[in-house]
Amino acid sequence: MEKVKIGIVGLGRLGKRHAFNLANLVPKANLQAVCSLNEAELEWAKKELETPQLFLSFEDMLAHADIDAVWIASSSVFHASQAKTALEHGFHVFVEKPMGVTLQECAEIEHAVQNHQDQVFLVGFVRRFDPSYRYAKELVATGAIGTPFLVRSQTCDLDEYAEFQLEFVKTGGGIFLDMNVHDIDLARWFIGSEIKEIYAKGASYVHPEFAKLGDADNTVCLATFENGAMAILSASRTAFHGHDTHTEIVGSKGILKIGMTPRRNRVEVFDSMGVHSDCIRDFYERFEEGFIAEAREFIECIIEGRKPEIKARDGTAATRIGMAMTESFKKGKVVYM
Amino acid sequence: MEKVKIGIVGLGRLGKRHAFNLANLVPKANLQAVCSLNEAELEWAKKELETPQLFLSFEDMLAHADIDAVWIASSSVFHASQAKTALEHGFHVFVEKPMGVTLQECAEIEHAVQNHQDQVFLVGFVRRFDPSYRYAKELVATGAIGTPFLVRSQTCDLDEYAEFQLEFVKTGGGIFLDMNVHDIDLARWFIGSEIKEIYAKGASYVHPEFAKLGDADNTVCLATFENGAMAILSASRTAFHGHDTHTEIVGSKGILKIGMTPRRNRVEVFDSMGVHSDCIRDFYERFEEGFIAEAREFIECIIEGRKPEIKARDGTAATRIGMAMTESFKKGKVVYM
Amino acid sequence: MEKVKIGIVGLGRLGKRHAFNLANLVPKANLQAVCSLNEAELEWAKKELETPQLFLSFEDMLAHADIDAVWIASSSVFHASQAKTALEHGFHVFVEKPMGVTLQECAEIEHAVQNHQDQVFLVGFVRRFDPSYRYAKELVATGAIGTPFLVRSQTCDLDEYAEFQLEFVKTGGGIFLDMNVHDIDLARWFIGSEIKEIYAKGASYVHPEFAKLGDADNTVCLATFENGAMAILSASRTAFHGHDTHTEIVGSKGILKIGMTPRRNRVEVFDSMGVHSDCIRDFYERFEEGFIAEAREFIECIIEGRKPEIKARDGTAATRIGMAMTESFKKGKVVYM
Amino acid sequence: MEKVKIGIVGLGRLGKRHAFNLANLVPKANLQAVCSLNEAELEWAKKELETPQLFLSFEDMLAHADIDAVWIASSSVFHASQAKTALEHGFHVFVEKPMGVTLQECAEIEHAVQNHQDQVFLVGFVRRFDPSYRYAKELVATGAIGTPFLVRSQTCDLDEYAEFQLEFVKTGGGIFLDMNVHDIDLARWFIGSEIKEIYAKGASYVHPEFAKLGDADNTVCLATFENGAMAILSASRTAFHGHDTHTEIVGSKGILKIGMTPRRNRVEVFDSMGVHSDCIRDFYERFEEGFIAEAREFIECIIEGRKPEIKARDGTAATRIGMAMTESFKKGKVVYM
Repeated sequence: MEKVKIGIVGLGRLGKRHAFNLANLVPKANLQAVCSLNEAELEWAKKELETPQLFLSFEDMLAHADIDAVWIASSSVFHASQAKTALEHGFHVFVEKPMGVTLQECAEIEHAVQNHQDQVFLVGFVRRFDPSYRYAKELVATGAIGTPFLVRSQTCDLDEYAEFQLEFVKTGGGIFLDMNVHDIDLARWFIGSEIKEIYAKGASYVHPEFAKLGDADNTVCLATFENGAMAILSASRTAFHGHDTHTEIVGSKGILKIGMTPRRNRVEVFDSMGVHSDCIRDFYERFEEGFIAEAREFIECIIEGRKPEIKARDGTAATRIGMAMTESFKKGKVVYM
Repeated sequence: MEKVKIGIVGLGRLGKRHAFNLANLVPKANLQAVCSLNEAELEWAKKELETPQLFLSFEDMLAHADIDAVWIASSSVFHASQAKTALEHGFHVFVEKPMGVTLQECAEIEHAVQNHQDQVFLVGFVRRFDPSYRYAKELVATGAIGTPFLVRSQTCDLDEYAEFQLEFVKTGGGIFLDMNVHDIDLARWFIGSEIKEIYAKGASYVHPEFAKLGDADNTVCLATFENGAMAILSASRTAFHGHDTHTEIVGSKGILKIGMTPRRNRVEVFDSMGVHSDCIRDFYERFEEGFIAEAREFIECIIEGRKPEIKARDGTAATRIGMAMTESFKKGKVVYM
Repeated sequence: MEKVKIGIVGLGRLGKRHAFNLANLVPKANLQAVCSLNEAELEWAKKELETPQLFLSFEDMLAHADIDAVWIASSSVFHASQAKTALEHGFHVFVEKPMGVTLQECAEIEHAVQNHQDQVFLVGFVRRFDPSYRYAKELVATGAIGTPFLVRSQTCDLDEYAEFQLEFVKTGGGIFLDMNVHDIDLARWFIGSEIKEIYAKGASYVHPEFAKLGDADNTVCLATFENGAMAILSASRTAFHGHDTHTEIVGSKGILKIGMTPRRNRVEVFDSMGVHSDCIRDFYERFEEGFIAEAREFIECIIEGRKPEIKARDGTAATRIGMAMTESFKKGKVVYM
Repeated sequence: MEKVKIGIVGLGRLGKRHAFNLANLVPKANLQAVCSLNEAELEWAKKELETPQLFLSFEDMLAHADIDAVWIASSSVFHASQAKTALEHGFHVFVEKPMGVTLQECAEIEHAVQNHQDQVFLVGFVRRFDPSYRYAKELVATGAIGTPFLVRSQTCDLDEYAEFQLEFVKTGGGIFLDMNVHDIDLARWFIGSEIKEIYAKGASYVHPEFAKLGDADNTVCLATFENGAMAILSASRTAFHGHDTHTEIVGSKGILKIGMTPRRNRVEVFDSMGVHSDCIRDFYERFEEGFIAEAREFIECIIEGRKPEIKARDGTAATRIGMAMTESFKKGKVVYM
């Protein structure tokens, strides 16, 4: 196999980015088909992507497109069923996070992956593909900071997106599932153990509308791992300076800090305001390289017959922990896994 | 009153620094007397400080020294009784943190302060006098970050001092009381509310000896305030890069970060190691200006007949919260104040 | 025209990168042909690029390849003649810097460009396409720093490449022409005036072999513009920390600094060495995004019938100034243009 | 000698700071006398310093004050004559920079120092006493960056002080002598050789009034040392972000950078402006520790019978080079020393 023929489902904001990357920036991928319920999105694809086949139905795409692999970037509620169906039809599957929105869904996916071991299955934990996070992981592997025992990781979105997020909360999983899922995955990745205990707090400090929906705009969570390590996982919908994802890994010999200042570029301004830098605006700007690298890795796993490092059970774990965080936040008590 | 005559008790490592500052760097203070149980320390004072009067007994100093004010830098277990005695004898009193090691002691101090309202009483929460923390406080007061609702604050000591700390733990209050007391005070100072709920975790990840003493070498704590704000308070005895005290104040309009990189000075080295900076070694190096400013403030309060911003009840609160953190850590459960 | 068919000449280290980018990362380019005198390089292209046509002769490629545009990444001595020939044969032309190695060559190019105004001609001043430099340019355009009157710009390569550079110097133009050509272009771009006066100094402080060849390993140059502005242009072949390209633009209202610390990524390490970051290794790592953006701009200019902002006269100016810097350095005196 | 009795002449802005430091922050100094032509300044001293003796005449102070040492902080034009007189009267002498404003004055001072070898003589090159510069000097001494061969050093003052400086220029030595004197001294200190060749440029880019006085508001200078090393010395009167003194020392194994970002304190603000820090306002804020350390060193040299590292010939060199820079700037040509 020289090139992988691929069909994508979902052409929302992030879906369009994935489609563009697959069509243009992943040398060994051929984007053959796109599927969306939204005709305007298909029109966009027709104009921008030179993709031969357009589908309004996911089942149609699976049945009729000339593809080897399916890339799932649809709404979270469809992730699990589409992934399962695609696996069962013999396709390699990439699925955006969250892998599933219930544990039942996750279990079904794990089962399907188990039954189709010759197919590549990858969950989109994009931060694992970011050059800085990969560099950190390599440093940890060399023993540069000894044994990691504490991870602090946070995801903060620009306050100006709060209104958009408010809509999203209505159908999404809430701040812990929607925003911390990457932090959860990173903490597990760096610590190499499972979280056993969760205590989460938060409130709507800036936008009371989130509270009305049972959600929060700023949260923190103290998690404990089976091996005794700890994590502090935070989320904010009210950052005014920019999209601010950062992670600290504390080990027995040193500390790694990743992205502590979300500088947009290499420019600093010195003027009557003092010294200042512009910050990153959104997660895509921060993780663009990671999104491209994750697509390349998916394609290369298929071509080389390799399995990705990320497993279906990582997707399950992130969902389970996000749900436990939500429960702890709502009940005001410690949750044991 | 043009100058304040002062007597100091306690000439340990920090006590010597206080004594030097009072003798040399606080224009309106006259260090008239020093008291220590340790003759070698008195010898040091005789040689270095030009202080006329040396005492082996605190009571003797109170009775015979020609002083207006007492500076208490003795071991923590003596703080409360010496402060109370000095207040009752009519002296102005500065006492190092912790103000007391039990709530009973704290209550007695508060009572004594209440009964001697003409005397200045100050607890050594030195970080409130650090130029960067003061600057941050002023920014918050101007509304620069809106309403603060989350404080993250940590105190980390160099790993090479762990052995020394191990000894100290045997008689001290443990990592929460000994190290986080300043973070507790800062969180209360910036949030302006009282902590009502505590969840603390930690372990001995690097030096198992701390666990044997019922203590830990790395801890984190999630605290909730009565007004709904939150704090993450961390401590570490195992920093390899330097003494690392830093604090973040998250508000409804922006964030202040204080001391995120504990650079020792303004020098950066660019060499085959990449780009690197040396870090601060210990709390005194970090807070030297604060220690001098706190002494000046104490003296100026006396001269000007002012009361310091820090009250006895701030000392009580820090002790109460540190004890709650310890309890939560030991019992593995949420503690409600 | 939906896609631009392109042929590249030169498959050295940088040429391979250009070829890969054109083949894979520039959506509207079709790399149809590659040309190299070196059969191993053609073999590489055959294997990696899926390019249908391979040529050992530049003239053959012009005559027989099915192409619209020529991308010149050959040795500097061939740039001008190949660019001129390609223009005369009706192709759009991209040429790597330097545009020419003599003023006569530059004049001939300018003449050829003049005579083929319907063809796109672009010199590879890649830094103008770097996101940080573009951002700085936009800030200057908005008046953010008032009127720029001083540019400091430097190019520093890793010391470990000095041996390679030593070989390169034997046939190249020396440190001013080979390394400062980008800094010269940036200074002209930001100041918007022509340099009238040059004073350059330097020596071989680390590797005496450069002196033996009449060259230097570290240089500085003070240039004055016709409008009175100034520039400090520096070069070093002996950076131990990394490839360090940085630029400061001083204006009447503020200063922009671009890339002052050449951090490799967003990771910082805090350990017994203090706090440190790894640095960028080479110019390609620093300017990868710029190289891709420059290729996209070239292709889009062709498709949209636009002319690039960079003109042939900018290529001439960089060569002329680099030669004046060399003369000043060699004669030890001020050179007036 | 247990304490050094000292008299200060000059109570301008900087003189007041020196007087306060000597009276309050230098343990082994007794400020016994102050001298000023300005009665209001003497009044200030009487009120703030508890200094017993006040003089309107320098000669009177030398004749009648009970002092061991003289601290000269008067206007530059008086430095040399007062220093010479004080030396001849047997006093230890500290003199602010510049040591003299003509080479004749400098020669006379050198002669006087030569004839009074038992007296301590110190020129106020305060940056040599700054903790960061000292740290850098120690690193260089350990060979951390190999052999230094290039120094870049600049002094920039806030634009809002330009009006004040405009007055000062009328009687002072101009931008090179008034502002670069410290950079000259640092370059000589780190390179350890003498400057042999100077090329300086500059203009009044922001405030044309400086040009009318034959001066400039922004300058750069390329200097060459006898040992082949180079220096770039810059000055600006038009910094909008703060007082910005920084220095880079490039060596054969690495680079030291001192003060590249003139952060005022350890606070960073993250808000809708991005991430920003306030900057230092003036040289005194930047070098306060250095001013105190320089006073302590002067006093300790006297008590311990030591000679300071800074010699009278360092003062002469700074004046000579500042004059050569001025000449190069005015004549538009290279000046050879």
